[in-house]
Amino acid sequence: MSDKPPLQRYLIWVEYHGGPFAGWQRQDHAPTVQGCLETAAAALNGAPVTVFGAGRTDAGVHAERQAAHLDLRADIPGRKIADALNYHLRPHPICVLSAHPVSDTFHARFSATARYYRYDIVNRRADLALSRGLAWRVATELDAGAMAAGAEDLIGEHDFSTFRDAQCQAASPEKTLDTLTVQRLGAQIVIHCSARSFLHRQVRSMVGSLVEVGRGVRSPDWIGAILAKRDRAACGPVAPADGLYLVGVDYPDP
Amino acid sequence: MSDKPPLQRYLIWVEYHGGPFAGWQRQDHAPTVQGCLETAAAALNGAPVTVFGAGRTDAGVHAERQAAHLDLRADIPGRKIADALNYHLRPHPICVLSAHPVSDTFHARFSATARYYRYDIVNRRADLALSRGLAWRVATELDAGAMAAGAEDLIGEHDFSTFRDAQCQAASPEKTLDTLTVQRLGAQIVIHCSARSFLHRQVRSMVGSLVEVGRGVRSPDWIGAILAKRDRAACGPVAPADGLYLVGVDYPDP
Repeated sequence: MSDKPPLQRYLIWVEYHGGPFAGWQRQDHAPTVQGCLETAAAALNGAPVTVFGAGRTDAGVHAERQAAHLDLRADIPGRKIADALNYHLRPHPICVLSAHPVSDTFHARFSATARYYRYDIVNRRADLALSRGLAWRVATELDAGAMAAGAEDLIGEHDFSTFRDAQCQAASPEKTLDTLTVQRLGAQIVIHCSARSFLHRQVRSMVGSLVEVGRGVRSPDWIGAILAKRDRAACGPVAPADGLYLVGVDYPDP
Repeated sequence: MSDKPPLQRYLIWVEYHGGPFAGWQRQDHAPTVQGCLETAAAALNGAPVTVFGAGRTDAGVHAERQAAHLDLRADIPGRKIADALNYHLRPHPICVLSAHPVSDTFHARFSATARYYRYDIVNRRADLALSRGLAWRVATELDAGAMAAGAEDLIGEHDFSTFRDAQCQAASPEKTLDTLTVQRLGAQIVIHCSARSFLHRQVRSMVGSLVEVGRGVRSPDWIGAILAKRDRAACGPVAPADGLYLVGVDYPDP
């Protein structure tokens, strides 16, 4: 007979500023979002806790709504979990927006059916004051229409090897990109995309190449041409982490 | 005969993060936006420069588009002024968005015909991670409709003594509030207002009182009632600086 207390699994929704962190994934000698959440959860749980995220965001990448799951002692009142985690997370810029009891079969990473990212560009000559660290400032005037035209060739099922970081551990470079939109709002250019899953640095690789089109260095056709090459060397410069936000994750209805 | 070089007046548009500054106005022993701009302008000009702002924002208050004017040696190329000021402003979170030559009769403060402010509230239980220092987080659920109803009584020409800081130096408490709107966008509540000019802390005093209505502590009618009292003691708590942005200034066409 086991004397371990029963556990309850929770889905948590998390907002964080990526700036101070070496990314989502736990590391021994650098602050990470997963590491901070696990330390906070252990303080609450009175025993070590592993936190599983929907997406392993890179160093400097932000989240408006990252999803994660963790197992906690069943006698901790569910409605107090977000508040208690937030108490232990201070002063890190990580906040648990809400916590929801889920079944033991739920997995934040493997149950996810779609992930949504947003990339924010500020297209102006002056550097950033208010959104420093929160957007990519591009000084050259960008043609958002050309970027949107180039983006269309990326939608659908493709071998995305061109837009895949050398360190990517995915089994296959084949992914289905469901949406990719480019919109200008004054000096802001906002790029939204969604897929069941992404390759490592895929979004920043796509954004960096689209900005080459926006600058007029390349034509919109170039995007489809480099995609067809299935060659990392054909990709444009990778866009900086500052402008990237994980903004949502879909799960099947429980 | 004077040997002073001729001067050219410029209107500059400025963005800044209010967090590190003791407000707009120059102080001897604290960093201010005006002080940083004057130091940068003096480095460019080779002689002291006074910078006049459209609005003297308080400590911690942000600007998306503050207007200011300054006089610089006429032999400095106009199109290089914004870049050169930004070079000397680093690493302060202050950026000159653009610079425009104007006549010697232009005055950023006295020529202004309207000022626009925005106040950002994030209405949720969890503290802020991404917009820390950039919004007011209110944990109690707010009724934005009730806030909007209360706001209507403030529009027009009134004696705003109730919403005026004790240190306000304006000659008269009579002001005309042209617009005041309250809109909910998900967890965000955005308040916009405009007037030819405002009393000291008028916007934060109005927002703080509207939030009392939003919390349900007071009814919408209360706003008109405290306005009619013309008594500072009747005002609700003043909203924090973090959520306030100067977003624009109007001038007559040159």
